[in-house]
Amino acid sequence: MSRRIRVIVQYDGTNYVGWQVQENGISVQQRLNEAVLAVTGEQIQLHGSGRTDSGVHANAQVAHFDTYARMPADKFAIALNMRLPRDIRVLYSEEAPEDFHARFSAKNKTYRYTVQTGLHADVFSRTTALHIHTPLDFMRMQRAAQYALGEHDFKAFMSAGCTIENTIRTVTRSEWTQNGKYLYYEVSANGFLYNMVRILAGTLLEIGGGKLPEDAISRALASGLRADAGGTAPPLGLTLLRVQYEDFDTEEVLNR
Amino acid sequence: MSRRIRVIVQYDGTNYVGWQVQENGISVQQRLNEAVLAVTGEQIQLHGSGRTDSGVHANAQVAHFDTYARMPADKFAIALNMRLPRDIRVLYSEEAPEDFHARFSAKNKTYRYTVQTGLHADVFSRTTALHIHTPLDFMRMQRAAQYALGEHDFKAFMSAGCTIENTIRTVTRSEWTQNGKYLYYEVSANGFLYNMVRILAGTLLEIGGGKLPEDAISRALASGLRADAGGTAPPLGLTLLRVQYEDFDTEEVLNR
Repeated sequence: MSRRIRVIVQYDGTNYVGWQVQENGISVQQRLNEAVLAVTGEQIQLHGSGRTDSGVHANAQVAHFDTYARMPADKFAIALNMRLPRDIRVLYSEEAPEDFHARFSAKNKTYRYTVQTGLHADVFSRTTALHIHTPLDFMRMQRAAQYALGEHDFKAFMSAGCTIENTIRTVTRSEWTQNGKYLYYEVSANGFLYNMVRILAGTLLEIGGGKLPEDAISRALASGLRADAGGTAPPLGLTLLRVQYEDFDTEEVLNR
Repeated sequence: MSRRIRVIVQYDGTNYVGWQVQENGISVQQRLNEAVLAVTGEQIQLHGSGRTDSGVHANAQVAHFDTYARMPADKFAIALNMRLPRDIRVLYSEEAPEDFHARFSAKNKTYRYTVQTGLHADVFSRTTALHIHTPLDFMRMQRAAQYALGEHDFKAFMSAGCTIENTIRTVTRSEWTQNGKYLYYEVSANGFLYNMVRILAGTLLEIGGGKLPEDAISRALASGLRADAGGTAPPLGLTLLRVQYEDFDTEEVLNR
């Protein structure tokens, strides 16, 4: 009998082509596949909660795979970490119900976009925060972010080339917080369209810089036109923070 | 007339052989010399507040150099950053009194040693924190750190091969703080011997792990024997946090 194992994976996306296996470089998924092969001898099919682009990070990505290996489920984390590069860590592993699916069972995801203000880019956040030295109106960005809350057709906040049919999503959190020179945009939803968080962040930063009106998100939601939203913020500031399932919440597990 | 310029430099020491120019690799000082040469056309002599070893970081290193360039002193930061790699930033530049010396005028320095606890190493602090997964008695380390306070002969906390004569230093702060899974040891003194902070941190971590008695620092200070102190903690956890002068305090300048 095979068992289904689910893992929480943390990675620094700087040196990867993204989550998904691709021909043009090394992906996080490929490194995990190789680690599972080294540990179990099996070529597994790894399913993540969703893709992340090149340069995007994860504090808590969820993935699952099926294995015949007899290792106790909680030992996979340590065993895989011994085979993984230091910019990918498996923070947790356990046996999942056989009908659990990292992607299709996900109920809610949270992303964070990090901006560093100030005249000079901090060396310690150079790969995890977007540095903006021009003035940003923080209160304006806070107010503007609220227009994303609720159930909307987010097709204006999707990169061209994506052919998904249902572009309606429900955003349950959309807010900015501040800690010194760092600004954090956190957004939770039952799902995200391709580049949706980066377009939301890009739009909010243009609102904060005075290049777009405060209700720009509302206008773009109404028109459904990509051109009414702002630019796509660069990947380095984006981190997948949390994935929630009916029976599994990465934040709750990691704070145990 | 030449002017003396002082700068506050931040760097991620991971990819450098240390602050000081060396034959076996690239140093932070060399990159700064090259940047000044590119900006001013001058081969300058750069003086830092002190050396840092390979892998050691700085949040606020201070350095000075003399130049005939007519650029406004505060513009050096921006001009140098355009020529520096992204893991070195000049956060501030100004004209200094002609008798200012980054090393000899320094009154006080503060270092921080960062430890990350928990079963797995966090990818985002893999080059700036020492990961320790075995249990540490935090309260014991806090109490033990206080033995370093005051004026002492710290020769037991100096790496062999150092031939300095006066090994008496005054420690004005020596304490641990905690933020989630991160433990920070911060130590301030009027000067530090070679590897002194890393040996203090290494000793305190052995005390926290139960390998040395709680008063181990006191005993080593009394005996003056290197063997009575603990091991030298690895460089990656160490950051030069602050340098203070009679007329210049990096923390005050950066918080303006």
